[in-house]
This record gives sequence, structure tokens and C-alpha cells, in this order.
Amino acid sequence: MIDNHIHQGNALNIDVRNITWKRCMDLNDRALREVVIGLGGQLNGMPRQDNFVITVASEVMAILCLAIDLEDLKNKLGNIIIGYNLNGEAVTAKELNANGAMAALLKDAINPNLVQTLEHTPVLIHGGPFANIAHGCNSIRATKLGLKLADITITEAGFGADLGAEKFFDIKCSKADISPDVVVIVTTIRALKHNGYGELKEGVSNLTRHIENLKIYGVPIVVALNKFNADTESEIEFVKSICDKQQVNFEISEVWEKGGAGGEALANTIINMLETEKSNYRPLYNLELSLEEKISKIATSIYRANSIYIEPKARREIEKIEKMGYSHFPICMAKNQYSFSDDPTNLGASENFVTTIKEVRIMAGAEFVVALTGNVMVMPGLPKNPSAENIDINKDGIVIGLF
Amino acid sequence: MIDNHIHQGNALNIDVRNITWKRCMDLNDRALREVVIGLGGQLNGMPRQDNFVITVASEVMAILCLAIDLEDLKNKLGNIIIGYNLNGEAVTAKELNANGAMAALLKDAINPNLVQTLEHTPVLIHGGPFANIAHGCNSIRATKLGLKLADITITEAGFGADLGAEKFFDIKCSKADISPDVVVIVTTIRALKHNGYGELKEGVSNLTRHIENLKIYGVPIVVALNKFNADTESEIEFVKSICDKQQVNFEISEVWEKGGAGGEALANTIINMLETEKSNYRPLYNLELSLEEKISKIATSIYRANSIYIEPKARREIEKIEKMGYSHFPICMAKNQYSFSDDPTNLGASENFVTTIKEVRIMAGAEFVVALTGNVMVMPGLPKNPSAENIDINKDGIVIGLF
Amino acid sequence: MIDNHIHQGNALNIDVRNITWKRCMDLNDRALREVVIGLGGQLNGMPRQDNFVITVASEVMAILCLAIDLEDLKNKLGNIIIGYNLNGEAVTAKELNANGAMAALLKDAINPNLVQTLEHTPVLIHGGPFANIAHGCNSIRATKLGLKLADITITEAGFGADLGAEKFFDIKCSKADISPDVVVIVTTIRALKHNGYGELKEGVSNLTRHIENLKIYGVPIVVALNKFNADTESEIEFVKSICDKQQVNFEISEVWEKGGAGGEALANTIINMLETEKSNYRPLYNLELSLEEKISKIATSIYRANSIYIEPKARREIEKIEKMGYSHFPICMAKNQYSFSDDPTNLGASENFVTTIKEVRIMAGAEFVVALTGNVMVMPGLPKNPSAENIDINKDGIVIGLF
Amino acid sequence: MIDNHIHQGNALNIDVRNITWKRCMDLNDRALREVVIGLGGQLNGMPRQDNFVITVASEVMAILCLAIDLEDLKNKLGNIIIGYNLNGEAVTAKELNANGAMAALLKDAINPNLVQTLEHTPVLIHGGPFANIAHGCNSIRATKLGLKLADITITEAGFGADLGAEKFFDIKCSKADISPDVVVIVTTIRALKHNGYGELKEGVSNLTRHIENLKIYGVPIVVALNKFNADTESEIEFVKSICDKQQVNFEISEVWEKGGAGGEALANTIINMLETEKSNYRPLYNLELSLEEKISKIATSIYRANSIYIEPKARREIEKIEKMGYSHFPICMAKNQYSFSDDPTNLGASENFVTTIKEVRIMAGAEFVVALTGNVMVMPGLPKNPSAENIDINKDGIVIGLF
Repeated sequence: MIDNHIHQGNALNIDVRNITWKRCMDLNDRALREVVIGLGGQLNGMPRQDNFVITVASEVMAILCLAIDLEDLKNKLGNIIIGYNLNGEAVTAKELNANGAMAALLKDAINPNLVQTLEHTPVLIHGGPFANIAHGCNSIRATKLGLKLADITITEAGFGADLGAEKFFDIKCSKADISPDVVVIVTTIRALKHNGYGELKEGVSNLTRHIENLKIYGVPIVVALNKFNADTESEIEFVKSICDKQQVNFEISEVWEKGGAGGEALANTIINMLETEKSNYRPLYNLELSLEEKISKIATSIYRANSIYIEPKARREIEKIEKMGYSHFPICMAKNQYSFSDDPTNLGASENFVTTIKEVRIMAGAEFVVALTGNVMVMPGLPKNPSAENIDINKDGIVIGLF
Repeated sequence: MIDNHIHQGNALNIDVRNITWKRCMDLNDRALREVVIGLGGQLNGMPRQDNFVITVASEVMAILCLAIDLEDLKNKLGNIIIGYNLNGEAVTAKELNANGAMAALLKDAINPNLVQTLEHTPVLIHGGPFANIAHGCNSIRATKLGLKLADITITEAGFGADLGAEKFFDIKCSKADISPDVVVIVTTIRALKHNGYGELKEGVSNLTRHIENLKIYGVPIVVALNKFNADTESEIEFVKSICDKQQVNFEISEVWEKGGAGGEALANTIINMLETEKSNYRPLYNLELSLEEKISKIATSIYRANSIYIEPKARREIEKIEKMGYSHFPICMAKNQYSFSDDPTNLGASENFVTTIKEVRIMAGAEFVVALTGNVMVMPGLPKNPSAENIDINKDGIVIGLF
Repeated sequence: MIDNHIHQGNALNIDVRNITWKRCMDLNDRALREVVIGLGGQLNGMPRQDNFVITVASEVMAILCLAIDLEDLKNKLGNIIIGYNLNGEAVTAKELNANGAMAALLKDAINPNLVQTLEHTPVLIHGGPFANIAHGCNSIRATKLGLKLADITITEAGFGADLGAEKFFDIKCSKADISPDVVVIVTTIRALKHNGYGELKEGVSNLTRHIENLKIYGVPIVVALNKFNADTESEIEFVKSICDKQQVNFEISEVWEKGGAGGEALANTIINMLETEKSNYRPLYNLELSLEEKISKIATSIYRANSIYIEPKARREIEKIEKMGYSHFPICMAKNQYSFSDDPTNLGASENFVTTIKEVRIMAGAEFVVALTGNVMVMPGLPKNPSAENIDINKDGIVIGLF
Repeated sequence: MIDNHIHQGNALNIDVRNITWKRCMDLNDRALREVVIGLGGQLNGMPRQDNFVITVASEVMAILCLAIDLEDLKNKLGNIIIGYNLNGEAVTAKELNANGAMAALLKDAINPNLVQTLEHTPVLIHGGPFANIAHGCNSIRATKLGLKLADITITEAGFGADLGAEKFFDIKCSKADISPDVVVIVTTIRALKHNGYGELKEGVSNLTRHIENLKIYGVPIVVALNKFNADTESEIEFVKSICDKQQVNFEISEVWEKGGAGGEALANTIINMLETEKSNYRPLYNLELSLEEKISKIATSIYRANSIYIEPKARREIEKIEKMGYSHFPICMAKNQYSFSDDPTNLGASENFVTTIKEVRIMAGAEFVVALTGNVMVMPGLPKNPSAENIDINKDGIVIGLF
């Protein structure tokens, strides 16, 4: 509808070089990352550069996961900034009259999906915003439905606790007015060794850092060690000793080997914690801080950067966003999931680094500000031998080669 | 998969300037008619020009409607020519190992959909290949299913009998080995007046031409006049007299006014014809003719052109296609639906004109050769005020503004 | 300056999809034939499609050759239509204030260059508008300078008398108010054989046609046969007999073999004609005819087409140009130089064909209307082994490999 | 010739996404900064992204200024890396057989131009490589010609002594084997105030820093103060006192006010220095250092950065360049001319900053490695009212509006 609006006279005076909204396609197609569209003359619209993103990277996905109800969804969709006019002012989806139709398309998608595990436990699966460009949690509606239906509701926040947990606490909990009772930090011997460049002793510094970080939020913590065959007793003991030193709970999860039964010990520990330990949840930062202060708070408290460096372009964007009146939005950091620092090869508990903010983007619909520490890939490519080459269907109509 | 193949080393040596396969999206989006993709450097694939087409204009849709069963579908999908290599040789979807996955995706789509009319009559709706670039008929599987389930099966072939009926007889009947028993030519007083530039007397020449044309196929004919309020008795009588002169049946259809009951007379006439008149169906042309002869046959016998003019570019394409071994394919003409001639403003029973063939395309999967007499639009655009602007959803979750 | 104007606010409201002015570069560079420019964001201008043309195909070259003096040059440059605004109205170089600077740049170029032949005869070489897209003659100023300085002034009009001579008579003579006294038709045995598909007897039909055509202009004619070694006496005699039958003069030119001396006979014949035969020059058509009538006149009288076919797009362009008030401009035909017809393989004296007009362009600065009968190449490409590969410079600073 | 090579079969297997050579045009044309070329199908070459640069930013200009003679010029032109093949190996102009023709084109351009000042003093003007992307000095040939013809040769190295003088000493002197006898640092009261944010007392820190820097090279120094009307005695005295403290000569230049006569005092001081002070020129760094060490040496010794930060992409480029065998090339820094640091607003004698290297480029023809600390503009744009709008030519052929 954006390009059609421009083609039909451009009443909103949209600047074709400053359109932030991307076309979206649910395919891995690297050739669509950077395109020029509208070629071929007057009948084919106005030429401009565009980028396709994959569905889960779209702001619509983030909004779907943060909307309270249909009306809220429609409002948030309407607030999406699709670009800027020639005077540099934001143009929203609402001004294009697109929000009603978008909400109508999503009227069923807003309802959580109930599925079951292989052991027939009910699970709600709903929403999947990319954790690199969005907040990476499932939908508020699904979590609230769980809280209403079940005694205990568990939700996941992936990509390292510095990314997933921070965003869960500071974006989702704050927006949904949820106060968690227990935090489970999941780890493996293999991951800790990787963080020590092969040495478990070195790598546990990473776990210690995550434990220290999550203590900031005031919620009781249990570390769950996902046990695999190759793990030795002494390795497990060593990890446990680290948790003891930090005065947090520790439990082994044997779900990988034994299915649901392997998780009983962890479940009991959690139930016990719920009964005996008191949560005192508080977010990392006050929303009234400036955008720069909030970014700095996350970088120095959670990542432990010495300081932040905001590149000139990003600084201009921050000023623009604050002028637009969005300084009270939470920050959604876009950082690699391998290191606390900007450098994915710097493992363990990185120290003495500066977090560089290269770009800042306003998500006026999803109501957060994305701060990017590097390039973020929002349209994947296919591998040399795409799975599609192995997929086939036989004469009986059975699809083969899917796995 | 094409661009990924090229990006990953291009083992098939595909010429990026000679890729005939288009990306496809089920949206009206004129800005995607001509695009440049693969920009942004080595990680984003190889730069090239591309065009997006709408789903119904894709060769996949034509194949879906011409496939006999799943195996045939997979074969035909594999035969699709996606482009040419640097030696000018065709590269197929099968060479990309894409046909298995494509067939798997379509395994449910190949089955006809059973729906019902407002009066609860069962109807099969299945497939919608654009009649401008493809053959414009519903699927062979749906028609065959109808023939198996019902005493009488009726199917539609739209866009003027010179396009729809010709393709139904010469492409679909021949491929499906179907022999129709009766032809119903549907007309209206308004359409005939339009063809006479306002004068019914002039405009009936168009009906006469269609009747003469369909006689060629040897199938008993009834003309059904779709009656509207403004039609006068004498007008109807006049049309009937034309049919009498041509010695074909005539019946009034009052379905517009009276629903199913309004079609009873026509139904009885058809049943009577089935019992008393014998069909002697034969196609217009023998597939063994050369491509040029077949094009010429359609243009001179059905359109009544004095001759055809094949532009040099189209002539080279014909030579290439015949060299590739596809000279026995039927022809799928792409012509405007308003006039027998290339000029949409030349109404009635056009005479003394030349049919110009501007472009010829091989559909190796769908197994026909498209001959274009002009530019064909395969990606529509939105109007000045797209319907989406009126669509909304209210607080009760009811979608409004759809009509 | 066009893209800068658009970038700086576009006060003239120029439609970026409807800019007719092309960038120009004096290089053979096929990759610049179709480009997309202005990419990379707000600082880099507005994205649009553009084409580069080679200098000699630019309207500026045509104007330089048709300008009477510096003031006329500046006016004509100012009249160039560089594109259209969003209301479809023409925008000129004058509105961009570009004509003064353009004229200043050309202030020396407008003066003819005096050079000499190998035999030290003075020659004026000035201007080279492409004969496919422009009128193909040298500058009016050079011709007028010749007329002032010399007793006899000879000028060339290449590319077949149906193209070069027609444009010389109907565009240049009319604009310069020049009345030629003698026409020299140059031919060779080899060219005539080629036109007869190897047979001289057949090929002379081409010469006959040209003679008949030029008689229309009322100027005394001499046919000059460029003699080569392989030509036999009887062949020459045969060509002479054709000229005799047409009652035009005939002379052999042996310049190829003998230099200036070989042209003496022809020179004497011409001097004799100047003294004894009277020219009665009149153009082919009256400028007051409509554009279509003028095109038709050229096609039927000179090319001997049965009729012309103006494609719908070209027809719309003609209507637009006439509405803009340019119907009195002469026609500059863009046709292949091999055949009288649109088909370059149709040699000799083509008959029974239709001349198709595919496109019509207004040159408001050069003051003619170009009618294109096919695609015209205005940016050449390099061959597989460009001459540049052979060019070198040795240690003494001598450039080698130029020829 | 690059695109033609690719079009004609691409025998060198050039990767169209990795072509480093840019098209060049001597125009200010921002719309050509980022373009897509080769569109329009098989006849128009291979699609790819390209950028146009202005002549002075081309590596050819740098080579012209560093070439010793015609043979050296041809060799250097042949060594230009025009891009990389699909295996990532460099492809040179020599492999395209382009260097001979390029040298032939430049055979006259390589000779210095002798012009005169308003006071009829002879001056050689020759070459103008952009100081942001190249080394910013005039040609070695002109300097050597001066040394041969005159008693004293003066040359300029602009853009701040941290850029111009550093490159003159470390690139040009080293390549030309020239050893300067005196350095003249030119300054103004206005510039020093600007560097003190208005305060002369603060701003002289900038001058002090430049003096300290140039002492490193071991050449006797004189500071020349360009005197303007607004300068007060006490201001001039203050600057002189700074020079005294640094034990370098100081002289006032009144050339702005008095022409040549105003420079006599400075000239005499220089002559005196030549007779009495001994130059002991040595470059800043040894060419045998690694590229990173050389960059670090410049940044920490001249700019006085605490350290350098090489971004990951730049680090990969350095590794690639060293693997290609070019680690012994000098470094050509691309930095803003306003500040010693990367931040143009950080004036005076910047301290406590890190120099960030964002990109590194090999100039295999010019034989240096460019290290970029930010984005570099290599194609200017026109202003809102281009001078061309004011340029005109009157009836007498006089060009007006040039100034």
C-alpha cells in the first residue's frame, strides 16, 4: 500500500529514499536482501531501494506478541512508522488506512495455539519475534492464558541470558505487568567448556556472570544443568560448587536422556523454591531515563562494558527519536549471542571493552527502541544444498526427505 | 533455489540475464513488476533483473490444472524451464532438484475443492490459470471427478469463445481426452449492443461469428441469452432469429432474476440436445502441424485475420522452440478479450486485419506454447483507493468493509 | 543538473519516470545502456532508471549541426525537452537554467574545423549526428562557410539515399534555406550485386529506385560508379545502360585507384551539369501536413511501402506532440540502412510491405520529430577483442597498434 | 573494458560482485555515486553494482603523480587491481591488456604544465590526487623538473600537516628519493582561534602539535603567519612566542595584502635557513614494519591517539593485502582534515582518543595502502543553485557568470 500510495499521487509526500518499512516474505532468499523495485516506467510505480525481511523479523510479529487484545493490536499496527515524508516527519500505517485491514488479517493469529508434547503435556506455542532485531519472547497473550489456566506457567527467553532474559524482564514483564517468581538458568558442560576455549575452569566465569546479572532482578534463581552422556561426575560437581559459591540453587536435568521423568528433580526444586523463596522482582532500569542512559545501563550492568560508544549516525537517530517523544520506550538491544562484548570471539566473561552502538531504530508500533551493536541479518539464505533438494513425494502421496 | 544455485557456484552455468522463471507473490503489487535483486555484495547473491508475477499467472498454476495425478504433476513441474545456461541450453526445475519439493507442497492443492451454491447445488472449484497467459480453464482433475460423480458435468471457459472455448477445445480436451456433448454460448443483449457500438443489429455479427467458429468443433450448440430487465421482446426475438438462421438452438436464461428456477428451460433444452443430437467433436488443428501453421490456423479460422505477421524476435523464438523439440505442443494464444483482432477497440466481427505475434514463450512443464499478440499484464496493481483502506475489524472481532 | 534539481526539492515537479534526457559519454560501453542511478539513500539523489548514449547520438549534436549562430544555438539548447512533470507537461533545459552554460561550453565547438586531404585539398569537417537517430548531415554552418569560400561546395549525406539524401533535402536544405544544384549518387558493382543477392541484374533495381526517388526533388542527377579492380567492362556498361534508360548522367570514379586524378572525369561532368542543367529543387512534403501524413509521404513515396502502420503507443505520442504544437516539424525517420523496408534482409527494390512506426520522439531543440521503425542502438559496445588491447606506447613515447 | 571482458565470456572469471575499479567522470554528479549497470538483457552486459568517482579520486591520478617516466607509468597502470575473480584472486589491468592503451592516452598528460603567476613568476601545475583518498601532492615529475631548472623548488602539501605533510614525507619523498631542506608551516590567526573554539590561547596548541610532529622528520622549520587586516600586534607576538618556545623560526607573510613583495621577508628567512641550518630528513616509519604497525605509528606519533582500533572487516583486508605481498607499501591515511582525531569537531590538540580504521584498500598501481578512518566522498554533488545556472554567453561570444 505504501508504493501504491506513492504511485497514486503521494498525498502524504512520502520520501522514497526514507521508507523504513520492508516488504516481507516467509522464505530464505538472500537475493531479496537488497533490491531495486518500481522499475519499468510510469505504470510500475516509483523506483526505490527496498529490502525483504523474513516474517519473524517484521515489526508486525513483535506487535502480535506484545498486544493485549484486538483493539490494542490495531492501535499498535496503526502506530507503525512506515517511513518519513520529505519534511522528515514520520508517516504511520494509520495514515495509510492500513491498520484496520492488517488487524483483520491477524484476527485469528492473535489467539494462542494449544499443542502437546510427545508425552501429551499441553503447551502454548504463539509468536516468534527474532531475538536479534526484536524482543525474542512468546506472546503476552499466551503467557497470560497460561497464568489463567495453570498453577505454574513456564516460558522461555532464548539467546543467552544477557539477551533473552534481559529483554524478558525489561520489555515483556514491564509491558505485561508480570512479576516472575523463579528464574531457571539452563546450561551445559559443553557450553561452559566452549566459553573457556576448551577449559571448563575458565568457562564457568560465563555462568557466574549470568548468575550475578540475574540477581539484579531480585528473582530466586536455580541453575539447571542439561546433562549429556559425556559429562563426568567431577565436572558436574565443579559447576555445582560455583552455584553454591553464588548461593543459588543447582539441579541436574536429565530430560535429554529420560524425557519428562528426567525433569522431575528440577520440577520439585522449582516447586520448593516457589513455596519457600520470595521473589522481589524489579526491572534493571527506570523507563524515565534517557535512551542513552538506558542503553548505557544495559551495556555496563549486564554486558559489563567499560562504557558505550554511540556512533555519530546513531546519536543523530537517538536525538530524532527523543524529539518524536519516544524517550520513555524500553531498549531492545541487538547484539550477537556469543559474547557479552560486540566481538563474538571474545568468550567467557569479557572485560575491558566498549559497546559500540552503530544504529538505533524506533519501533513505534511495538513500542521499543532497537539499539544495534553490529549488522543484523533479517533475511536468511539457503545453504549450498537446500533441504528442498531432498524433499520428494512418492506415488502413495507420502512426503519424504523432510528430516 | 535458482538464485541460491547461482550464488553457491552456479554448477549449471545459468546465464543470469536469461532466466525465464519469475518470483511469485499472491499480492497486487505493481512495484514488483520490474526489480533488480541480489544487490549489496557477495553475501547477497548475484545481481540480476527479475519480475514478480501473481500466483494465477505462474506456470505452476497451469500445470496444476493440466496434471492427471501426483506423478504427472511432479514430472511436469520438473520439466519447467527456469532459464538458459551460458550456452543457450534450457535448464529445468528437475536439474535444480526442485520438483520433488514443489510436488510435495502441492500434494493437497491437487485435490479439487467441493463447495455449494446458494441453492446448495454441489460445485467443484479448482484452479484458476490466467486466461491471458495460460489456458484459462479449471483443472482436468476436477472435470474428470465431475464426470465420474454426476450424470451431466458443466464447465466454464471464459474470456470470449475465441479465447476460452478455443483453448478449452484445443488444449484441455485434447490433453484430457475429453469429448464434449454440447456447447452453450452465453450472451447478453448489452454485450451485443456494445459490439455494435450501440446498435444491436450491428452487434449480432459478433454472435454469428462465434457460432460459426464453434461449429468447426462439431459439437451441438445452444445460445443462452442471459436476460436482464431492460431487454425488450423484440430484441430477444431478433437474437433468436439470428440463431435460427444459423440453425442452432436458442434459450433464454433467467437465472439473474429467478435463481435456479430461471435456468430450468435452458437445462431442459440441454438434456433434450444430449438425447437427440450427436456430437462429433474434432479439434481445430492437428498437433503435428508446425507452430507457425497452428498459430496461423487459429488466427485465420477463429479470429478471421487475413494473415499473421510474426515479428523477427518471435520468429527466432519459434525456431528455438522447434529445435528444442516442442513443435508438437498446442498453442495458447494471448490476445485481448474485446476484439477478434489485436485492436481492442475493433468490435463486432472484425475483418481485414493482420494478427501480429510479438513474442512466443515455451511452457515446457504445462506443455503448450504461448503466442503473445501484445503486452500481457501478469502482476496487477492496486487502485487509487485500495479496498484494504475500508476493511476494519470492530471490538467484537467482526471484520467489516469487505464488500 | 536534472538529478540535482530533483534532489534539491524538485521545484519543477519533474516525474522521475518520465525523463527523456539521457546522460552522455563518449565511450563504447554497453553496460551503461540501461542503468539505475541515485541509489544509496537520501544523500545520493532520487533513484531512477537512466540510459547513457554516445555523444553523436545526443540531441546536442543535432542542434550543433542545425544552429545558424551562437544565439540560435542557445535558443535551441534551451528548447530541449529534458522530461515531463507529474502533470505530463514538458520541462525544458531553459527552465533548468542550463542553456547558457551549455552554449558557453560549445562556443568554440560551433566553429567549423578546416583540415586538408592527403593531396592538400581543404576540407571542412564539422559535426556528426548519428544518422539512425538524427539527421546524419554535417553542420549548416560548415556548409554555408563552404558556399561563401568556394565556387563549388560538396557535402555528403550517408546511409543510403532513402535515409541520407531524404533527410538532407527535407530537413537540412529546408532549415538552411539551401537549394542544391546537382545530386551525385555513389554506387559500386559490389553493392548492387549484394542487393541482387549476388546477381547484378537483380540488384540494379535498387539503383533504379534511388534514381526515381531523387528525381522527385527536381535536382539534376549523376550516378558515380566507384570503380574497383574486380569490376568488368560489361558490368560497368550494364550499370551505365540503366542510367541511360533513366535519362540521368553516369560517370566512373577511379579515386580509389588513382586518388584525385581518378575523380577528374566526374568533376568535369558535374561542372558541365552546373553550366547546362537547371535545378528545380522542391522538398518531398509540405511542412503544413500532419505528422502522420508526412511519415506516410516518406514511407510510400521513398520507401514505396503499401501503407504505414502506427503502433498504438506511437499514435499516442503523435497526438501528444501535435497537442504540444510541433506538428509543423519535419520528420526524421529512423530506419535500417540495408533495405527500403523495415526488414534488413529484404534487398533490392522491396515491394508489398508495410512500414511500421513503433515509437515517435520529439526533438524540440533540434526541431524535428523522430519516427522509429525499430529499435535504435544509441550506445555501441566493444567487440570481443577491443582495439585498446593492441594499443601500446613504446619507450620513445610512440603510440603503436592504432590501426 | 572490464564489463566488456565479462560480457564476452569472462575468461578471467571475474566476480561481478567484487570489482574494485570504478567508472570515472569529471563531473559533480551525486546520482552516479551508487548505480546498477548492465540492465536490459543479454545484449547489455552483465548486471552489477557500480560507483562513479570523480577524476581526481581515481587511482590513475595518483599513479600519474607518482610515475617516474612513461615506462614506469605503464607498469603501474598495469598493476592496478580492477577486482577479484571467483576464487578471490586479484585481476589486474595488465591481464585485461588495458595498460598499453591507458599509457598511450596519458602520454601527454605525464608532462608537467608550465604556467605563470599574476606577477609572471613561472609555476609548474601538474596533477591533483584527492588528499582524502590519495596522497594529495603534485607530481614527482614536476617536482624533479623544478629541482633541475631552479635553484630553489617549493611544493605544497595541503589539508593540514598531519595529512599533507605526513604523506609528502612518508609517501612522495620516499618514492621520489627526495630530501627536503626546509619545511614552511603556514598558519593564520583565524585558523588558530578556530582551533581554540574562539580563543587564540587555546588554539595555538594545534600549532605546537604540528611543530612537534614535523620535528620528527628532522627538517628545519619556519612558521609562516599569513597576515590579514584583523590580526593585532599582540596576537602576532603571541604566536611568535610559541614558535620561540619551540625553537623554530617565525616569519610574517603579507602576500595576501602586498602580493610578491609581501613574501620577501619569508623568502629571505628561507634562504638564510638553507645556508645555515642543516636538514637531516628521515621518514616517520620503516617500510619493513607491518601494515598495522605503520598505521599505528602514524596514529600514535602524528595524531597522538592512545591506540588504534581496527574493525574486523578492515583487519581481514589487511591480512588479505599482506598475503598478496604488499606489506612493504607505505600507508596513505584517509582522515578528516579538521581534527587530529576521527571526530571533526574535536579541535586544538586532541587527546585521549582512539583512531578507528574502518576500511583498508590496496592501490597496487599507486603502490600504497589506503587506511580509512571514516566514509570518504569520492563523487561530489552540485549545490542547490549550481554555478551553471549563472553561466551564460552573450551575443559577442563572451562567456559571463563564471565567478
